[in-house]
Amino acid sequence: MTTYKSNTINIGIVGVGTVGGGAVTILARNAELIANRLTKIRLARIADKDLERASKLVSELGLQDVIISDDWHDLITDPTISIIIEVVGGINLPMQIISTALKNGKSVVTANKDLISSHGDELLALAEENGVDLLFEAAVAGGIPIIQVVKESLAADKINSIMGIVNGTTNYILTAMSENNLPFAEALKQAQDLGYAEADPTSDVEGLDAARKIAILASVAFNSRVKDKQVPVEGITKISQWDIQYAKEFGYAIKMLGIAKCDGRQIEVRVHPALIPLTHPLATVRDSYNAVYIESDDVDKAMFTGRGAGALPTGSAILGDVINAARNICLQTRGRINCTCFASYPIKSLDDTISQYYIRINAKDAAGVFAAIAKALGNEDVSIASAMQKRWISEHNAEIVVITHAVRHADFMRAVEQIGKLECVDAVENIIRVEE
Amino acid sequence: MTTYKSNTINIGIVGVGTVGGGAVTILARNAELIANRLTKIRLARIADKDLERASKLVSELGLQDVIISDDWHDLITDPTISIIIEVVGGINLPMQIISTALKNGKSVVTANKDLISSHGDELLALAEENGVDLLFEAAVAGGIPIIQVVKESLAADKINSIMGIVNGTTNYILTAMSENNLPFAEALKQAQDLGYAEADPTSDVEGLDAARKIAILASVAFNSRVKDKQVPVEGITKISQWDIQYAKEFGYAIKMLGIAKCDGRQIEVRVHPALIPLTHPLATVRDSYNAVYIESDDVDKAMFTGRGAGALPTGSAILGDVINAARNICLQTRGRINCTCFASYPIKSLDDTISQYYIRINAKDAAGVFAAIAKALGNEDVSIASAMQKRWISEHNAEIVVITHAVRHADFMRAVEQIGKLECVDAVENIIRVEE
Repeated sequence: MTTYKSNTINIGIVGVGTVGGGAVTILARNAELIANRLTKIRLARIADKDLERASKLVSELGLQDVIISDDWHDLITDPTISIIIEVVGGINLPMQIISTALKNGKSVVTANKDLISSHGDELLALAEENGVDLLFEAAVAGGIPIIQVVKESLAADKINSIMGIVNGTTNYILTAMSENNLPFAEALKQAQDLGYAEADPTSDVEGLDAARKIAILASVAFNSRVKDKQVPVEGITKISQWDIQYAKEFGYAIKMLGIAKCDGRQIEVRVHPALIPLTHPLATVRDSYNAVYIESDDVDKAMFTGRGAGALPTGSAILGDVINAARNICLQTRGRINCTCFASYPIKSLDDTISQYYIRINAKDAAGVFAAIAKALGNEDVSIASAMQKRWISEHNAEIVVITHAVRHADFMRAVEQIGKLECVDAVENIIRVEE
Repeated sequence: MTTYKSNTINIGIVGVGTVGGGAVTILARNAELIANRLTKIRLARIADKDLERASKLVSELGLQDVIISDDWHDLITDPTISIIIEVVGGINLPMQIISTALKNGKSVVTANKDLISSHGDELLALAEENGVDLLFEAAVAGGIPIIQVVKESLAADKINSIMGIVNGTTNYILTAMSENNLPFAEALKQAQDLGYAEADPTSDVEGLDAARKIAILASVAFNSRVKDKQVPVEGITKISQWDIQYAKEFGYAIKMLGIAKCDGRQIEVRVHPALIPLTHPLATVRDSYNAVYIESDDVDKAMFTGRGAGALPTGSAILGDVINAARNICLQTRGRINCTCFASYPIKSLDDTISQYYIRINAKDAAGVFAAIAKALGNEDVSIASAMQKRWISEHNAEIVVITHAVRHADFMRAVEQIGKLECVDAVENIIRVEE
């Protein structure tokens, strides 16, 4: 890379928790490498409300001349600092920090998916107004370079769909359920014990975290803003061992997916567990790994796999952005690539989305039951791709599992309602989308 | 992306064969998308010795005002053209075209792996001298964005090793051998029939093509120049069905790999077929797909998978580079990132490389044979990880298959020589490295 050894770029970081600590650690360890590859990047200031933790980090890493403060204003107003890393988390405080920093002419690097997926448009506009960079590679899929890949490497290509395993916690849980036959609750506990899941796992297992990431990916890929609130979510808490085992028998794995598609008129976006064929590349992505699978006009099918979280992978993504922001400062091209949303496609109603479905039904073990279910499906033009009668639940009940052909969501849900009302059916135990 | 709608960037292309035709097709089809994402990029000139093919392409795509010529000098001297795409292939002619273009102040985009892996250093220096860009994303792994990823997204990270399935032809052949039990010759013929392999497949099956790509990847990843000639290669022509089947029994797939490692003192680089565990992500990469697997200090393990060849995937990579070069023109930052080799590590001798090995031996079916083989291995400090006596070749002969623990190459080869001389051994049928 063109090096600019005469420059030293001073940066500041707000928040030195796990991810912030990772970024600072890499910057300290790879200082020489980074200087050789571009220019000297010096950590000038840390702001963290926990002064002790910040001091400990600085002394452990042997960093010199780093000013520590518990007030982020000290960073934002320091005229020697040109790039701010924000890794505070949450919405309100980082919104205030980032917008003030941008207004003060600082480039900003953040890993904050909550904020970018909800207020990315305002912040990117603010960055543009102030002629600085706002970069957020680390907000999606941790260490996997995907934002720059989509914005730059694939800039000539029309992306049609993105399917991502963008939440490591749920991928860990589903892998444990599938490979070790654990029930959901036990797999969750294991994930919590290993630090992959929070004490309150709601945001992960209910799909909110994945929704933020797929919203950001969709915005970047389709050049049209998608916000987290526009993404319908469905969690994995209802996935049982039976679903996992039946899926396997049909030749599928169950994965938690963020899906975004664009047909040039509308954007379809959703987060939910889905059956995908065992031969699909996403089915091979195990444990807490993330992966983003892209289908486009020209590159066709491509997949990017790696660690979606963790101090060092996420820290590396943050510093990759810092280096890009520093290059833009050296070359006087701050604001080189900011908001890429020149289009404005409406979001397709969930009712109009089309998928295959898996449906598991607890029904009387009697003649005519299957026919009644098939009829209810047929009434709404839902055709059956495959079906099996599976385990006996009791002396009188058995489980029937059906995989449908592709069908409009609203039509399928009407069929499900009819099935639920059948006298021979005790319960529709689960319905899960099937993706190819 | 920041758009520069007032600019129109004129480009020229030399060579409109498969890949060049792909690039022109995408540029025509996605003209509006590219204009919205950055600026208008207009194909002003084509040079191709086959004027008819060039005219046909232009008229099929309905392109207006494209000047066709059979002399590349016409492009290089046209002052209205600022970016040249070179997709001629070979070494001497493209060397002349690219160096003249760079000297004339044109940025150049090429897919030419032969040239970049052999003369990349000179050409990048020339680009730097003339303050223009020389970009070559399409030279490695076709549609997979990997050069920009390594140069920019992973710029803060220290990469320790790269393993790549970077030749689609051999991956197709090995997949067909493994999944359809075809012998090498038949799998090759199938690849030729499908257009995946050339009539003369030497460059692919002997590993020369992969050597060029791993040389380029190593140079970029380790910031130290590696040339194609420095890469020891071993082809796949000796891989038999027996090797594939025995590997499976031991829990491995056989893949053709380009491998590059750097320990901060030396670079190790080689191309050869290898056994890799069936659980390794590279083992799941099938057919003609390519994949690059990176291990680094911080991002840890990441893999990038996609189509490594073909008109549209490669064309998309070329145009991604064209867009980057165009952005640099708009922002007056031509030469933004050129040669990144600031270090100069020596290449480790093949003798000193350390691997596990698979060895298949045709030996007398008699008492003491295994002991003799084990002794020959032991003499050179090669220890056995697992071993099996496999099929009976004849009434008197059987096949013995051994997988060793990690061992220095030269030591292992001495042991192999001893085994070959044993009276009870008729032949060492094959030796293949084992990678984890």
